[in-house]
Amino acid sequence: MALGRYAIVAAASASAGVYVGTEKDQIKAAYAKVRGMLGFRPQSVDLTSSTAILEEALNLTKATPQSCGVLSTIQSGGVASRVIQLREPFGVHRDGDDVFIHFFTSAASRKFRELSQNPKTALLCWDPQTLTYVTFQGPARELSAAEGKSFWREWMQILYKDTSLFSAWRLDVQRLQVVSIGHIESFRKDWHPVELERTSSGWKVVCDGRE
Amino acid sequence: MALGRYAIVAAASASAGVYVGTEKDQIKAAYAKVRGMLGFRPQSVDLTSSTAILEEALNLTKATPQSCGVLSTIQSGGVASRVIQLREPFGVHRDGDDVFIHFFTSAASRKFRELSQNPKTALLCWDPQTLTYVTFQGPARELSAAEGKSFWREWMQILYKDTSLFSAWRLDVQRLQVVSIGHIESFRKDWHPVELERTSSGWKVVCDGRE
Repeated sequence: MALGRYAIVAAASASAGVYVGTEKDQIKAAYAKVRGMLGFRPQSVDLTSSTAILEEALNLTKATPQSCGVLSTIQSGGVASRVIQLREPFGVHRDGDDVFIHFFTSAASRKFRELSQNPKTALLCWDPQTLTYVTFQGPARELSAAEGKSFWREWMQILYKDTSLFSAWRLDVQRLQVVSIGHIESFRKDWHPVELERTSSGWKVVCDGRE
Repeated sequence: MALGRYAIVAAASASAGVYVGTEKDQIKAAYAKVRGMLGFRPQSVDLTSSTAILEEALNLTKATPQSCGVLSTIQSGGVASRVIQLREPFGVHRDGDDVFIHFFTSAASRKFRELSQNPKTALLCWDPQTLTYVTFQGPARELSAAEGKSFWREWMQILYKDTSLFSAWRLDVQRLQVVSIGHIESFRKDWHPVELERTSSGWKVVCDGRE
């Protein structure tokens, strides 16, 4: 049985106290227990195939609880993070090789200011139940008023005292990392997760097709 | 009934489809439904008290599923995010006014390299069930080998083919943001969450004690 790093961390998490002062065999037992708890999902995704990884990463993202994601931005040379809503018509979409994420904010918000100053951003979707996360990296840009219009929904009125502050954004995904315990894991010594990179001709596995 | 922005977003999330083409009253009904689902928690936390906010934020963090958090770092002028394990002896701790987070990584990992180059970081803990997140911002520094030693646990052996790569870190929290739907919410026009800032004399509410 190959042991992924995150799987072991999960095992440690799920079995706190069981293995105090114990040996590797016991953590292996804990790992087996975690796999049982999660339902055994053999690593069926072909990690040499960017297409297979991309499709599964997008499927996993759809299952994110509450359709929320963690958006991180550059703030005064440091990092800021907050949870944002990604329910339809927002969220992760794909058009051929283009993967992009639509989200909304207020023109008076910090993230609006931060993304206007530095568009490089990361959005992470996390499902604690299946120990799965997908990180999308790339630049975000504000949509034009005309483009943004199609994203406006009547219920949003209540979010904006001044509806002219409504602002729709698009993050163009250039890199994607995915970890899903017992399902998609890398086994590299440097702990790098499975990762895809956008190229001019599509998507490339940069980890862990055993480069 | 005062309506927080995040509460409305949550209502929108929980009641998808209910209010297509409807009016504000219907989103208010959805909001009431969400409050019911979450269990009614009156906003009992005094938002003018940094002590009350800090205590409750740390309590909420303890309830984070899987004891995991999202750590974001500066990466080549952009942002990288990943989920990290924070179970004891790691995690968020407090000593008087000092709030700090211990975590571990490998000296061969990206986050080790990134934090060595730019220590400014953000750690976000998210509980989708209660629609709660807490973000901790501040610089992280690697502990000395002597300090790190007390954090080593035997089960970690399996994570490190080379145990000399074990590396323990400490994030000193300088700013903290918290949102917990129906419980701790700000009502500012710029969508800023409730926020505390560390000062030389303790903690200061910078939002939303109605400054």
